[in-house]
Amino acid sequence: MLHTTANGRQHPRPSHLGRPGRWLRMLAAALLALAVLPLAQAEDGYELWLRYRPLEQAALERYRPALAQLVLPAGNETQRATRDELVRGLGGLLGQAPAVADVPSAAGAVLVGTPASLPRLAQLGLDLDGLGEEGYLIRSLDLDGRAATVVAANTDLGALYGSFHLLRLLQARQPIDALDLRQAPNVKLRVLNHWDDLNRHVERGYSGQSIWDWHRLPDWLDPRYTDYARANASIGINGTVVNNVNANAQILTPMYLDKVQALAGVMRPWGIKVYVSARFSAPMEIGGLATADPMDPAVRAWWRAKADEIYARIPDFGGFLVKANSEGQPGPQDFGRTHADGANMLAEAVAPHGGVVMWRAFVYSDEEPDDRHKQAYTEFVPHDGEFADNVLVQVKNGAIDFQPREPFHPLFGAMPKTPLMMEFQITKEYLGFATHLVYLGPMYEEVLRADTHVAGPGSTVAKVVDGSLHGHALSGIAGVANIGTDRNWSGSHFDQANWYVYGRMAWDPYLDARAIADEWLRMTFTADEAFVEPVLDMMMASHQAVVDYMTPLGLHHLMGRGHHYGPGPWVEGGPRADWTSVYFHRATRQGIGFDRTTSGSDAVSQYAPPVAEAFNDPARVPEEFLLWFHHRPWTSTVASGRTLWDELVHRYSRGVGQVERMQQAWAGLRGHVDAERHHQVERFLAIQRKEAQWWRDASVAYFQTFSGLPLPEGEAPPPHSLEYYKSLEFPHAPGDTQ
Amino acid sequence: MLHTTANGRQHPRPSHLGRPGRWLRMLAAALLALAVLPLAQAEDGYELWLRYRPLEQAALERYRPALAQLVLPAGNETQRATRDELVRGLGGLLGQAPAVADVPSAAGAVLVGTPASLPRLAQLGLDLDGLGEEGYLIRSLDLDGRAATVVAANTDLGALYGSFHLLRLLQARQPIDALDLRQAPNVKLRVLNHWDDLNRHVERGYSGQSIWDWHRLPDWLDPRYTDYARANASIGINGTVVNNVNANAQILTPMYLDKVQALAGVMRPWGIKVYVSARFSAPMEIGGLATADPMDPAVRAWWRAKADEIYARIPDFGGFLVKANSEGQPGPQDFGRTHADGANMLAEAVAPHGGVVMWRAFVYSDEEPDDRHKQAYTEFVPHDGEFADNVLVQVKNGAIDFQPREPFHPLFGAMPKTPLMMEFQITKEYLGFATHLVYLGPMYEEVLRADTHVAGPGSTVAKVVDGSLHGHALSGIAGVANIGTDRNWSGSHFDQANWYVYGRMAWDPYLDARAIADEWLRMTFTADEAFVEPVLDMMMASHQAVVDYMTPLGLHHLMGRGHHYGPGPWVEGGPRADWTSVYFHRATRQGIGFDRTTSGSDAVSQYAPPVAEAFNDPARVPEEFLLWFHHRPWTSTVASGRTLWDELVHRYSRGVGQVERMQQAWAGLRGHVDAERHHQVERFLAIQRKEAQWWRDASVAYFQTFSGLPLPEGEAPPPHSLEYYKSLEFPHAPGDTQ
Repeated sequence: MLHTTANGRQHPRPSHLGRPGRWLRMLAAALLALAVLPLAQAEDGYELWLRYRPLEQAALERYRPALAQLVLPAGNETQRATRDELVRGLGGLLGQAPAVADVPSAAGAVLVGTPASLPRLAQLGLDLDGLGEEGYLIRSLDLDGRAATVVAANTDLGALYGSFHLLRLLQARQPIDALDLRQAPNVKLRVLNHWDDLNRHVERGYSGQSIWDWHRLPDWLDPRYTDYARANASIGINGTVVNNVNANAQILTPMYLDKVQALAGVMRPWGIKVYVSARFSAPMEIGGLATADPMDPAVRAWWRAKADEIYARIPDFGGFLVKANSEGQPGPQDFGRTHADGANMLAEAVAPHGGVVMWRAFVYSDEEPDDRHKQAYTEFVPHDGEFADNVLVQVKNGAIDFQPREPFHPLFGAMPKTPLMMEFQITKEYLGFATHLVYLGPMYEEVLRADTHVAGPGSTVAKVVDGSLHGHALSGIAGVANIGTDRNWSGSHFDQANWYVYGRMAWDPYLDARAIADEWLRMTFTADEAFVEPVLDMMMASHQAVVDYMTPLGLHHLMGRGHHYGPGPWVEGGPRADWTSVYFHRATRQGIGFDRTTSGSDAVSQYAPPVAEAFNDPARVPEEFLLWFHHRPWTSTVASGRTLWDELVHRYSRGVGQVERMQQAWAGLRGHVDAERHHQVERFLAIQRKEAQWWRDASVAYFQTFSGLPLPEGEAPPPHSLEYYKSLEFPHAPGDTQ
Repeated sequence: MLHTTANGRQHPRPSHLGRPGRWLRMLAAALLALAVLPLAQAEDGYELWLRYRPLEQAALERYRPALAQLVLPAGNETQRATRDELVRGLGGLLGQAPAVADVPSAAGAVLVGTPASLPRLAQLGLDLDGLGEEGYLIRSLDLDGRAATVVAANTDLGALYGSFHLLRLLQARQPIDALDLRQAPNVKLRVLNHWDDLNRHVERGYSGQSIWDWHRLPDWLDPRYTDYARANASIGINGTVVNNVNANAQILTPMYLDKVQALAGVMRPWGIKVYVSARFSAPMEIGGLATADPMDPAVRAWWRAKADEIYARIPDFGGFLVKANSEGQPGPQDFGRTHADGANMLAEAVAPHGGVVMWRAFVYSDEEPDDRHKQAYTEFVPHDGEFADNVLVQVKNGAIDFQPREPFHPLFGAMPKTPLMMEFQITKEYLGFATHLVYLGPMYEEVLRADTHVAGPGSTVAKVVDGSLHGHALSGIAGVANIGTDRNWSGSHFDQANWYVYGRMAWDPYLDARAIADEWLRMTFTADEAFVEPVLDMMMASHQAVVDYMTPLGLHHLMGRGHHYGPGPWVEGGPRADWTSVYFHRATRQGIGFDRTTSGSDAVSQYAPPVAEAFNDPARVPEEFLLWFHHRPWTSTVASGRTLWDELVHRYSRGVGQVERMQQAWAGLRGHVDAERHHQVERFLAIQRKEAQWWRDASVAYFQTFSGLPLPEGEAPPPHSLEYYKSLEFPHAPGDTQ
């Protein structure tokens, strides 16, 4: 009913509130209106998981006595942000915000702060060691004979994070009467990568334009920027790279730095540092230099001066993200230098200010490689140990490019002297864009829990990324954002879950994907168990579904060219073989799959021996990666006892079937969730169903031309000819590169 | 407080409404919340002028008894749309929707319908003659001894229009107890032109992406489409051209026609026909023909078949808009044929289905003309009388291109045998984009009221456009839309007024710009007189302000190249002279202005003699067009007694000063309007102030290099050098062509 504004800001109380007579009349009118008007507010998804709708009565009765008073400082921007969020959140959830007081004076006080900011909290002798600069504790305790709750941290930011945690407990209806929680992030840099161009186009964006209104910055600060910062802070994201890795050097000009500075000012109270993607050739393009050679003193001086200029504007600037010598981007190799040379030059420029360089390992040479899978490893491993202390090498989760499912990237564990950042893609470039319901939690979890075996069993990717395996203090994780100007931010309601799970796993890579989905559902939709359980099942099964209907059994890179929309297993020709589908699936009359065994490209040998041995053996390789590592005969037998061909068709159809089950489950939930979101999800599931069928039919029609085998019993033939599927064109599909 | 959803749709009543206990508890919680939470709902502009917030008590007491019961049919989509809008609108405004009944049974009944749809209405003997297919009457009368109101029309659409009128009366707090209104539109086709590309880029768009989500059409019908239709219907717009006049032939392929058909289905209940911009060379690009020659039988057959295909999908399809042989677009002249040949071929294709062709007169040849001003007239007047009956020639308001102020286009009145559509630009390509507060009502009014004198005094442009001057039954007016995906639709709150005034003047070109602004303000912001009066003054002065600070005294085409952002009076060179600024201002050491007199390009002679004589005489030409028609010495004297140079500088500064006064007025209105919109308008006015100053400073610095004269007493010198202003670059300014 009554609620804060959709953009989450608080407004000064309207002046007419001072006139009780009118006020009461309006209230009376509102009450009358209740009798005939639908109870409605915009359920358009703008509020994300920070909806703060009133809890049901049982929860109110439980929580209200324990949350009767807020004791917290408001002396700086982060403290005020914390206070305002708690007032907004508790006010919404409880129907009434607790009174704010300077000192605890009643039962149910909630103390939020640091020993420095809140003297009463300093007196409690809390053990804040080990919480670091971002951790917090939440504890129920007795304060002068009255029950109280403390949210304590070493920093204001820690207290903010703890406050969001407290709100989350309420949103999930968790008990709060005997709290004893300690949390600190496992990963230091938890950043979003925006592939946003300066003209507001978003590469691989399916949710509208870039939220950065560059043209009107710095003069107009869209309130949405604040809501973006709130949402990120609520899940622990502490950095944002605001422009595309395919970077435009103009971001480094004073005109744009004015704009970046303005954004940094909005982000700062919420603990979010701003980074920019730097174009390696910027000294030539905007600096007037004849070279961008990282060993050239003038180039080094230019970058140092540029860093100084940036830090003079933005003292807490995060640093640079760089895509160099990859897909046509300039880089140190253009000047006969190494990736380490390039990264270290930039690192030198930002080091005096505490900045970092995130150097992407997504590279492949201009010449066609024998196996693109191997290239990042080949290029980077020799330089392990050469990178400056403030450089992280940012590695995609798999060796190809954010495919529906990839084995973990062999670089993880292979560069022990270098902090390796994980780069996940949140936007669903290869996973059905924003219309397909695909929860990425299980995919992230699968990669993070994968065991590299580089230091014996248990050497998981998560331990590489969080620095614990090789003892790095610097650690990071990046997610390619799915955020745009669409009212619901992510293009669909369920894609909000991917932003959410990314942030939660960046904070703690050991979290459970299902548990995160559970909390997200309760915060975003409803705590109604009749809704949560079936939808959890839908979400958890959704990743396997899309793998099945797009790229089963380890197939990969089968999508339409350029825009990556829809099936394109027939894609061939063009500028380079490793941008085609036929390069990757290698289907012949005899069989299908990319032989990466020791007899093939030998990509398997980039993994530690126990992993390499398993991947190398068609009998031991996990079946989901069978055709990733092996070229197998159509008539060979797989675990199910089916032939490979039958299993392939079976999996395509199984994926379609799973979408149908999601449709049925969702249809049964009408009435458990607002009609507005129910309708959109329902329509999007219908699109997903149609497109899953299209993927299945087109792929089966195509691969059947190789296998020459009949469809298994009961499998419907594709309704159109292969030529029909090949003829479809989508020149304006969203998200393509510009 | 309680309100309909922001997107204006009604939702099924949530199931928990059936549980009164919980309901009352939630209500109680809401009442408690009132004590501590700001009274707030999203004032983000999404609802446009259809906000329907509860009226103040005095108005409620006046209106409620007169609006106690709604009697109206709901047998088809338009009738249901009418009913839903009245329930939504009256429910919001009155706090309670009137009961809906089949027959009037109480005092205060409102009967809405046609004699065919509502038998009781047929018995009243109302005079519906002359209302046509879209008109309506609203009358207070006595019904069986009880006061009642009827909204009656010959068609369901007329009743819908009348219902919006009734709601508007309430929003403006007009008396409704003795109504006797009759309204019918003066202009038959009242259409928006969307310059929207199929990739969602909007040419000259400053409000986000295209609202048409082509990629997800036809499967996903964004609820926004319905709200778009509602808003347009509320002001009488009855057509929409969904794609850019710089057209892509793909819109005519089956894949896109599926999408257009889906949009037409959303628009239909609201009386809005869908049109598309047709690319003249489509038969070659998507039809496989070797030519697009309009005299080629195969080409003619292709278009007939294409029209048949479209009408099979969309029986009420409006027709085609064509930009041909202009700015590189293909057209009949490519094949040695005339505009009439091209238009008539398309007209022949749509004529059997009742469609029309809107053929744009915005043409200029590939060769540089002596005066671009003259070209449309020169090309089109010889063909007057050659166009088919269902062709309209669509003429921009002035002869150059939507400049801040232009004299009316000489074609108006010059083609008596051809229906001429007016083409206004609503999006502010040359008027400060979406950040400048410029109300276009006075500009539209100025053009519509201009007297062409072609049939003696009083031969106004409005009479040409509405067909009354030359007796055309077919008439039309087009507005280039300023609508995009921005939450507030138009990029700024005040630009909504330009959409509104366009629609209102399209319905009735004789309406008063100030009166329209007055009603818009009351509907959109508040009826608080302390707010309305000063803001009305701001709006009414705003057009002259932008003319002053951009293009005073008849100067034109002085903006930055390509994106048209900011001042560029120095623009020269490039592909053709008439795309430069120097071509148009012709400044020299001696003077400034384009000599279009009989001694110059003789463009004046394209106007009727009384007009031509006045324009030709520097002493009689309206001073606002002085330099449009005359090259004048810097030291010549103008009406104020100042020299031309001094007057020029004076007007630049006067424009800046007016923006400052708008800032001051707006600052004083804080508290009279919600904080959210107040803040954005305040920030945008600050941008306008900054950019107005920039225009003034850059222009003065530039023109002073010609005049060589000192600035008048009291005028501040530009703070930067001319070279500085010339050095500024904005490669990513929005809205450029692609």
